[in-house]
Amino acid sequence: MNKYADLFQNVRAVKPLVHHITNYVTVNDCANVTIAVGGSPVMADEMTDALDIVSIASALVLNMGTLNERTIPVMLAAGKVANAKGIPVVFDPVGAGASKLRNETAARLSGEVVLAAVRGNISEIRFLAGLRSRTKGVDASDADIADAGEAKRAAKSLAERTGSVVAITGATDIITNGKNTVSVSNGVAMLGSLTGTGCMCSSLIGCCLGANPDRPFESVVAALLSMGIAGEIAHEKAGHLGGGSFRAALHDAMSRMNAPTLERRAKYDEA
Amino acid sequence: MNKYADLFQNVRAVKPLVHHITNYVTVNDCANVTIAVGGSPVMADEMTDALDIVSIASALVLNMGTLNERTIPVMLAAGKVANAKGIPVVFDPVGAGASKLRNETAARLSGEVVLAAVRGNISEIRFLAGLRSRTKGVDASDADIADAGEAKRAAKSLAERTGSVVAITGATDIITNGKNTVSVSNGVAMLGSLTGTGCMCSSLIGCCLGANPDRPFESVVAALLSMGIAGEIAHEKAGHLGGGSFRAALHDAMSRMNAPTLERRAKYDEA
Amino acid sequence: MNKYADLFQNVRAVKPLVHHITNYVTVNDCANVTIAVGGSPVMADEMTDALDIVSIASALVLNMGTLNERTIPVMLAAGKVANAKGIPVVFDPVGAGASKLRNETAARLSGEVVLAAVRGNISEIRFLAGLRSRTKGVDASDADIADAGEAKRAAKSLAERTGSVVAITGATDIITNGKNTVSVSNGVAMLGSLTGTGCMCSSLIGCCLGANPDRPFESVVAALLSMGIAGEIAHEKAGHLGGGSFRAALHDAMSRMNAPTLERRAKYDEA
Repeated sequence: MNKYADLFQNVRAVKPLVHHITNYVTVNDCANVTIAVGGSPVMADEMTDALDIVSIASALVLNMGTLNERTIPVMLAAGKVANAKGIPVVFDPVGAGASKLRNETAARLSGEVVLAAVRGNISEIRFLAGLRSRTKGVDASDADIADAGEAKRAAKSLAERTGSVVAITGATDIITNGKNTVSVSNGVAMLGSLTGTGCMCSSLIGCCLGANPDRPFESVVAALLSMGIAGEIAHEKAGHLGGGSFRAALHDAMSRMNAPTLERRAKYDEA
Repeated sequence: MNKYADLFQNVRAVKPLVHHITNYVTVNDCANVTIAVGGSPVMADEMTDALDIVSIASALVLNMGTLNERTIPVMLAAGKVANAKGIPVVFDPVGAGASKLRNETAARLSGEVVLAAVRGNISEIRFLAGLRSRTKGVDASDADIADAGEAKRAAKSLAERTGSVVAITGATDIITNGKNTVSVSNGVAMLGSLTGTGCMCSSLIGCCLGANPDRPFESVVAALLSMGIAGEIAHEKAGHLGGGSFRAALHDAMSRMNAPTLERRAKYDEA
Repeated sequence: MNKYADLFQNVRAVKPLVHHITNYVTVNDCANVTIAVGGSPVMADEMTDALDIVSIASALVLNMGTLNERTIPVMLAAGKVANAKGIPVVFDPVGAGASKLRNETAARLSGEVVLAAVRGNISEIRFLAGLRSRTKGVDASDADIADAGEAKRAAKSLAERTGSVVAITGATDIITNGKNTVSVSNGVAMLGSLTGTGCMCSSLIGCCLGANPDRPFESVVAALLSMGIAGEIAHEKAGHLGGGSFRAALHDAMSRMNAPTLERRAKYDEA
C-alpha cells in the first residue's frame, strides 16, 4: 500500500475533530465531506466559542470565502491558539488577489499564524507568493493558468520561506514543501463546475493532517488524491447526467473512498 | 391509523409557518425538509425582523449550531415573544457541553424561555440535565452513548422539572415528558454520517408542533418517527451507493412521507 | 433561434462574474446554478470587500432572504457603485411585506438604487407596487395568487415608474418593462416545493443581464424560460422519485441547458 493510502485510512481510525471557520456558501459540503471520510466537523466562528472549540480540535481550517470583520480576528486568534497547542492549521485563501480586504487578511493570516498547509487555485497562490495575480473573483484566471511554470517555482519558494506545505489545485495539482514536490494528475474538469470542490479539498487536508499531524506533506497529497479520484469515479458514474447528479456521485465516492481505491487509482509524480 | 400518523398528516393540512433561528451549516436542509412535509420555512435572525416574523409563525426553532453574539439576544427575545403568544418553541442545543458560550447560552435559553420541546444527542441532553457531558464537538461521545440508562433517567427528570418534551436522538430515540416515555427504534446508522439529520429532526418537530400545538408529546414522537422511517427507506434505496445518493433519497422519502407509511413502518415502545 | 435562446447562450460565452449579496439559506444553490449556466459566482458582503468585488463584476444580485443590519448598508453601497459603473443590479425582495425591516429595506433599495430587474413572488411584487400584500413569511399567499390580474397591472405600473424590468414568478411568470409584457408558462408546481428556486431565478437573471447588459427585458425572459424548462425536464426525469432527486435533476438540467433546448421547449406569450 502506498504511504498516501495509509495516511488517508488513518482518518477513519482517528476520527479527527476538524474545526472550520469558513464561508456560508460551501460550508455544508465541507461538513459532509469531513464526515464522509471519517472526521467530525465543527463550525464555530464566535470568538469565545472558537477558542474553546479549537482547543479540543485535531485540526483547524481557515477559509476566507465570505470574509467579514467579525470573523477575521477570530481566525487570527484561533490560529494562534492552534499554533500554541500544536494543532495543524490549514489556510484556504479564497479570492486572495481580488480585493484589498482579502489581500490584507491573507497577508495577516500567513504572517501571524504558522500554517501547516495552504491550498488555493493558481491565482490565489500567486498572490501569496508575491507574484502578480490576475484573479477574477474567486476563480483562477486563464492568464494565470497559462503561467503554471512560474507559479510552481513561486509555490516552492513560498513553502521554503514559510515552512508551510503549499498546494495549487487545478487540472494538475502541485504540492510542495519547498524540498519535495508532488504533482497529482487525478481529477476531471467537471470538478471545476461545482462550487465548493476547492473548499472541500481544504477540509480533506484538515482531516488528513488531523489524523497525521507529523506527516504534513504526505497528508496534503493524500487529501488531494482522494478528491481527484472521487471526481473521476463520480464523472464515470454521473458526469453524463449533469451537475446535480455529479455532485451526489462525488459525495458517494468520497464516502466510499478507501485505501485500496486510493492505491489502485492514484496518479502522481514525485519530483 | 395511529395517533402519530394522524398528527404528521396535519402538517400538510395546516401548512405551519416555521420560523428558524439556526446555523448556516444545515439551514438549507432544514428549509427543504420543512417544505417536504408541508410546512413553510422562514429564516430571520435580525432582531426587528425576527420579532415581526415570530409573531406570525406557527412554531419557532432555535438551533445553536453556529452561535454568535449577534443572534443570541435575538433567540432569547424571539423565544419570549413566542411564549407570550402561545407559539411553541423547539430548542436544539447543538454542541452544548463543548464550549462555555454554548453552555451558557443553552442555560439561558432553557432558563428564560419556556420550551415546548428540546431535542439533542445524548451528550447535549446530558449537559442540559446537569450530568457530566463528555461531548466531542457537536457529536455525541461514545462514553455518553454507553450510559443510555442514566441519560434516560436524566431526560425524564429534566422534562419533569421544565415541562418540556425532551428528546434524545440516536440509535434509539427517547422521547419523554416526564410522565410518558416513548422509544423509537426506526432509523439507520447512516443517518449519523450525514450532517444536518439532527437539525432536520428539530425542524420536523417544529412542523408537527406548529400543526398540533396542543399535542406536544405526540408531535415530537411523530416527527422522529418520520425521520427514522425516511432514513430506512433512503437506506434501502440508496445506502449502497454512498452518502450523496443517500442524502437525495432521504429528501425523496421525506417529501413522500404520509400517514399510511408512518402507520405501516413505525416501530416504537410506549413505556 | 429565438432571441431568448441566443441571450442565454451568451452567458456561456461571456462567463459573467455575478456578485451576490444574498442569504445563507439558498446561497449554495445560487452559486451552483450560476456556474451551471456558465457564470462565475462571487459572494462578498463585507463593506470594503463588496465594494472592490462589485467593481469587477458583470452583475450584482441583491437578495433580502436573511437580511441583517450589517449587510443592509453594504447592499445599498454596492448597489450605488454598480449604478455608477453601469453594472446591472438585480433585486430579489424576499419576504417584502412580511416585516417592517424587510419592507423598509425593500423601499430603500428600490428608492436609492437603480434596479435593472426586480424578481419576486406575487406577494412581494404587490408590496413593492404599493398594493396590499398578504404574504405569509417568504411564500406567496393564496389570496394574492388569486388576484393575478391586479398584480399584473401593478407590476406594469411599477416598471413604468422605476424603469426596472419587473418579474413575478409563479405558475405563470409575468415579465414586464411597462411597455412590453411576456408571460412564460414553462415550469412545474414541484419547483415550489424546493427552497431556493426563486433565488436561483434571480441568480440566472444576474447571469443573463451580466452577459447582455443592453438587453434587460429579454435577459429576464431568457433566465425565467431556462428555469421553467429545467424544472420540466427535472420533473420528467425525477419528479416521481421525490424532492431530493428532483433537486439533483434540476441542477443536471440547468448544467445541460442550451440554446436548442430553450428554442424547442420555450412556451411564452408576448403581449
